[in-house]
Amino acid sequence: MSKLRYGMFGGSEDAFIGKVHRIGAGFHHHLEMVAGCFSRDEEKNQSTAQLLSLDQDRVYKTYEEMAAQEAKRSDKMDFVVIVTPNNTHYSASKAFLEAGFHVLCEKPLTFTHEEAKELARIAQQKDLLFGVAYAYQGYAMIPLMRDMIQRGDIGEILTVNSRYIQGWLLNPVFFSPTEAKPWRMIPKYSGISNSVGDIGSHIEYMVRYVTGLHVNRVCAVMDTFGEELDMNTMMHIEYENKVKASYWVSQIAWGKLNDFNIQVFGTEGALEWNQELPDYLLYTKRNEATQKLVRGQEFLPYSSKNYSQLPAGHPEGYHVAFANIYAKFSQAILDHRQGVKDALKVNDVPSVTDGIEGVAFIEAVIDSAKNDGAWKKVAK
Amino acid sequence: MSKLRYGMFGGSEDAFIGKVHRIGAGFHHHLEMVAGCFSRDEEKNQSTAQLLSLDQDRVYKTYEEMAAQEAKRSDKMDFVVIVTPNNTHYSASKAFLEAGFHVLCEKPLTFTHEEAKELARIAQQKDLLFGVAYAYQGYAMIPLMRDMIQRGDIGEILTVNSRYIQGWLLNPVFFSPTEAKPWRMIPKYSGISNSVGDIGSHIEYMVRYVTGLHVNRVCAVMDTFGEELDMNTMMHIEYENKVKASYWVSQIAWGKLNDFNIQVFGTEGALEWNQELPDYLLYTKRNEATQKLVRGQEFLPYSSKNYSQLPAGHPEGYHVAFANIYAKFSQAILDHRQGVKDALKVNDVPSVTDGIEGVAFIEAVIDSAKNDGAWKKVAK
Amino acid sequence: MSKLRYGMFGGSEDAFIGKVHRIGAGFHHHLEMVAGCFSRDEEKNQSTAQLLSLDQDRVYKTYEEMAAQEAKRSDKMDFVVIVTPNNTHYSASKAFLEAGFHVLCEKPLTFTHEEAKELARIAQQKDLLFGVAYAYQGYAMIPLMRDMIQRGDIGEILTVNSRYIQGWLLNPVFFSPTEAKPWRMIPKYSGISNSVGDIGSHIEYMVRYVTGLHVNRVCAVMDTFGEELDMNTMMHIEYENKVKASYWVSQIAWGKLNDFNIQVFGTEGALEWNQELPDYLLYTKRNEATQKLVRGQEFLPYSSKNYSQLPAGHPEGYHVAFANIYAKFSQAILDHRQGVKDALKVNDVPSVTDGIEGVAFIEAVIDSAKNDGAWKKVAK
Amino acid sequence: MSKLRYGMFGGSEDAFIGKVHRIGAGFHHHLEMVAGCFSRDEEKNQSTAQLLSLDQDRVYKTYEEMAAQEAKRSDKMDFVVIVTPNNTHYSASKAFLEAGFHVLCEKPLTFTHEEAKELARIAQQKDLLFGVAYAYQGYAMIPLMRDMIQRGDIGEILTVNSRYIQGWLLNPVFFSPTEAKPWRMIPKYSGISNSVGDIGSHIEYMVRYVTGLHVNRVCAVMDTFGEELDMNTMMHIEYENKVKASYWVSQIAWGKLNDFNIQVFGTEGALEWNQELPDYLLYTKRNEATQKLVRGQEFLPYSSKNYSQLPAGHPEGYHVAFANIYAKFSQAILDHRQGVKDALKVNDVPSVTDGIEGVAFIEAVIDSAKNDGAWKKVAK
Repeated sequence: MSKLRYGMFGGSEDAFIGKVHRIGAGFHHHLEMVAGCFSRDEEKNQSTAQLLSLDQDRVYKTYEEMAAQEAKRSDKMDFVVIVTPNNTHYSASKAFLEAGFHVLCEKPLTFTHEEAKELARIAQQKDLLFGVAYAYQGYAMIPLMRDMIQRGDIGEILTVNSRYIQGWLLNPVFFSPTEAKPWRMIPKYSGISNSVGDIGSHIEYMVRYVTGLHVNRVCAVMDTFGEELDMNTMMHIEYENKVKASYWVSQIAWGKLNDFNIQVFGTEGALEWNQELPDYLLYTKRNEATQKLVRGQEFLPYSSKNYSQLPAGHPEGYHVAFANIYAKFSQAILDHRQGVKDALKVNDVPSVTDGIEGVAFIEAVIDSAKNDGAWKKVAK
Repeated sequence: MSKLRYGMFGGSEDAFIGKVHRIGAGFHHHLEMVAGCFSRDEEKNQSTAQLLSLDQDRVYKTYEEMAAQEAKRSDKMDFVVIVTPNNTHYSASKAFLEAGFHVLCEKPLTFTHEEAKELARIAQQKDLLFGVAYAYQGYAMIPLMRDMIQRGDIGEILTVNSRYIQGWLLNPVFFSPTEAKPWRMIPKYSGISNSVGDIGSHIEYMVRYVTGLHVNRVCAVMDTFGEELDMNTMMHIEYENKVKASYWVSQIAWGKLNDFNIQVFGTEGALEWNQELPDYLLYTKRNEATQKLVRGQEFLPYSSKNYSQLPAGHPEGYHVAFANIYAKFSQAILDHRQGVKDALKVNDVPSVTDGIEGVAFIEAVIDSAKNDGAWKKVAK
Repeated sequence: MSKLRYGMFGGSEDAFIGKVHRIGAGFHHHLEMVAGCFSRDEEKNQSTAQLLSLDQDRVYKTYEEMAAQEAKRSDKMDFVVIVTPNNTHYSASKAFLEAGFHVLCEKPLTFTHEEAKELARIAQQKDLLFGVAYAYQGYAMIPLMRDMIQRGDIGEILTVNSRYIQGWLLNPVFFSPTEAKPWRMIPKYSGISNSVGDIGSHIEYMVRYVTGLHVNRVCAVMDTFGEELDMNTMMHIEYENKVKASYWVSQIAWGKLNDFNIQVFGTEGALEWNQELPDYLLYTKRNEATQKLVRGQEFLPYSSKNYSQLPAGHPEGYHVAFANIYAKFSQAILDHRQGVKDALKVNDVPSVTDGIEGVAFIEAVIDSAKNDGAWKKVAK
Repeated sequence: MSKLRYGMFGGSEDAFIGKVHRIGAGFHHHLEMVAGCFSRDEEKNQSTAQLLSLDQDRVYKTYEEMAAQEAKRSDKMDFVVIVTPNNTHYSASKAFLEAGFHVLCEKPLTFTHEEAKELARIAQQKDLLFGVAYAYQGYAMIPLMRDMIQRGDIGEILTVNSRYIQGWLLNPVFFSPTEAKPWRMIPKYSGISNSVGDIGSHIEYMVRYVTGLHVNRVCAVMDTFGEELDMNTMMHIEYENKVKASYWVSQIAWGKLNDFNIQVFGTEGALEWNQELPDYLLYTKRNEATQKLVRGQEFLPYSSKNYSQLPAGHPEGYHVAFANIYAKFSQAILDHRQGVKDALKVNDVPSVTDGIEGVAFIEAVIDSAKNDGAWKKVAK
């Protein structure tokens, strides 16, 4: 496999998600970080670059500088990873695309779905790949779940239930009134939503990925507990094919960490997956006992093998999900060089198209919740 | 404890719930069945009576006859248990009340909340006790959960989530088109609702019991899958104090049996209970690890001890929940004889008042679901 | 089914196991308690009898009196249940057998296997049924487990692992030096063993029941923590067919309640069952995912249905195990009256023969442990 | 942190454990692979080197050549990682030590404990660090478990139970008689033991690490199922302080993957950890409910934070355990350069001393099992 060089926007040494991206990419010998703009705090920017042994002339003060300077180099980066808070996703993505770089950006993609659409247009015009880092899709059991549903293992889908609940905002909201709020609670950085934007977007994408169902309209209620943005949101969902679902996101649930759960019920069976135990997939066939499928088991059907890195029983964690996203995104770039069309789709990478649908979903949910649960359509 | 005699309406030998009632009552040496009208099928009625060694002259063809004849006896029954399908709850309860008997009736209590209110009025006029067999309340961990919430162990309630999901109607609906439908699917026997009436009523009562919260309004969507009544219903809930919740009932979920789960999240902690593992209560205190409380543990606080019959680690099942309901209801009758006021409440027995609120809830949910999820108030 | 009358020796109102026996018998309308000798404390004896509404002339001061007086009655009891501490099992069983009564006795059966053999001889001479109350065998999934193994679902057995661990003796041993010890710690009442006698005997019987394997020899180590009897015992097991197993019993394991677990591994699959979650049976077929079988599921094969009383998902607990033992033992008596040979075996009831093997096992384990783990044969 | 260069012996592209080592090292920007001898199959050796972009002149045909050539370079590697089957651990380690390199070697360290002692002597003479890759020690909850025990959270240890059971040898042994056996079944590559050497060594080390208890003597039984080496081994353990334990290893347990479980019971509480769910630690305090501690929780005491890389609820897997071993081993080298004494111990790295005790344990177990379970002392 040819080497690919990447740069990073955001992700200074003390930022959680940037480090996970770097480790995920680091699973692959063909990926190399060559450039970065890690923080607007120049001291942090420099110390992160030093930690990563980056060449001094490829450490940039702004994304504009980074896009412009990298574009001029003969050994320029092959793609850029954007791991900043939501508010800079749009402008930075736009700048890198216009400078000719493939982009892998964190979610939710933008503040509005119109912005996301514009990014999609630019990427298409420039023939660039634009991936969105819905990282949980990288867990090995997720493509298996999708394939099992696609080939009919659970028959026709009757209903879906998904939750993503956490408790990390209880202390800031109820017990630390004087401390600085996390950025996700602040519209300037987070956009119109906190809980739906951060974790609801994972539900929307992942359920769509495994089921193929697109949300038509939503009926939502939310709690803000006196803050500016939502922290506990319940959603009735109606997909385009009229199937109904229930989604729930919360950041105020004591004892819950990253309890992201997906259950899909069909005429012929059911599947359930949980992010905290990602190596397992519970599978019930019609009139049979529930089975616990474990990643890596020799007899598992289909796709799970492609993404499984360890023997069954040695747990694969969050880093591996990122590693798989990087494996797929980098392969897509190599394929694209060879003229493969729709290289992201071919390689099963969440794309800007997914990002658009994700942002439109957030907009519809918040709109509904602000209108006392009136049904709202997801914009196309 | 004085002996108490009871009669049963419904519950022939092959009926599931009647037998469970009899076994639950049978835990107590002071309870004795003396009369019955078990089936409109006279052969079944007689064979059940014989199995139970009932005196031939106390086996009745109809509830009217049973009420009338028993009322005349000097050794008449002390109370009657009604375990028929929903459609006869109202008329039979009315007959027995008017004949002067205390009643313990299955849920949902009636077809309409007005009927339930009428029963309440008659019971009050006649100074009779009217219990409703929300049997899950009899599990020993439930009063513990209620007491922990009441004394503030989880602080102020922020949100509630409850599901009761099953899969038993998948075969009749999707795979056995020619067989007779279960009575719960048929309006004549079941009333206006199937899933909400049968299992949603358990959620409504149990959440109210443990939290003290009353539902103000609901926003529901439902699936009927071509049948007459609902089989998969999702509900946004707003309580009178504006706290929001999410309820979900389903009868089309492969792999789910009686998966009735209640989670309550507060500012100071959280509690979770599941009917299939009723001896456990998961308790998370603010900034502490989740604990697994087990029924019977010596160090458990409060009320759980009153209802616990076995040492911790020897599972108590469904029968014990009924046994506890009978313990409480029969004690209420004894107390009532002694002039204790509000004997049902004193003894923590679900009453006709709970039954009214339960039926009004079902009405509001079905009304909302039929009006595309418009918010509907629960009638008072 | 004809009515059967039984008497009880032991089991006063505050004794745990006697009450469970009475409730278990009480599941069945054809069983009726008619006589008792509940305590050597005459006050307790009388108050228990009163609680149970027993006729005053059938409340006895001693088992000798009970055996003698009942034998004279025309309406005498049909069988007696013995639920005292171990030290009186032998003499009381002997007295009741010699007076002509069928016996159902708690385990471990006697202090020595020779005593147990003598009881077996008397029962045989008198053509009486002698059951031993290994109550866990009554859980519905246990006969299923046995049948699955018998018909080859897991192939040839390769190894077995079983534990029964508790923590209830930690407080008496380490933290309450001045309080009276529980009777199980005292040789006078308990015999030569505490942990092996009380809970190890369950492992021995249950593994033998489900696998059909008989222990040939044992190699054991034990801890007494300064007390007279064992409280933590580990055993290497060699069955007659040379297959090896590991058993472990403990009463000093914090957090463990009645954690009785059995795993059987064969060439074609494996089975696992746990007493605290008795409705489940984990089943792994060769090269397939582990399945969770649930009592009552429609599609379960074989025997489980006979013993299952509730629909799947409504938990059956400890009382139901006793109810099933009573169902089988009373049916055996009825069959025996009809001339059926080996009526206990026909009805799958643990018998005095099982009791003998159980006591011989305890003797071998304690002998081995006292001889620094030398292998000891189980006496035949 | 200064950069450190390492070489690898073994670990060609299709070898499982070598790749995991490389990824674990790859979590750290200061670690760089510079040399390798990956396979005796020169084609594989070269293709692996190419995959890893190694300089051609640092790809070696033999470990002797690698040791000799690297020693001559000014930019020589700082340490070597040995990930071959057991049979070459001794000779290769010796060669690299004698050439002046720090070594990190897979377990079990050698065929005999005398060989291991010799390696320890050479390392000491040459003032070199010799780590042994007991990788599970790298899981973040393990140092927490050790610290909790050390500071007395569970009081005085009463007993220990540990199992490591798998099923991966069932197919080769019972169903694929004509295929090549895995190397672990073959004495030439594996030494005197299969199951005890491979997975029993993990139990021995990890229990010792968390409890501080050293095994004095063992009493073992084993099954070979007609093969040359053990595949199912049960062990009674007596520690130097007379506390007793039970260990069990198996490779013929259907449904079991890497089910490595450790339970430690003390007077004041108990702890339990399982490798397949490594982020959790079950903690029971005396007379309190069992708590589920989760890696990363803010309120966890002590050491766990040092090793935790992700927020609680995002699972850390097997790769992270390796990453932590590399973090500690490389820090030990840097400390050693600064003159820190006992740098491995200071940094909590499993060392050659641990390796010696591990091999002596294997020898004692196999000796006992071959002598019908006679107690055997672990050589010092």
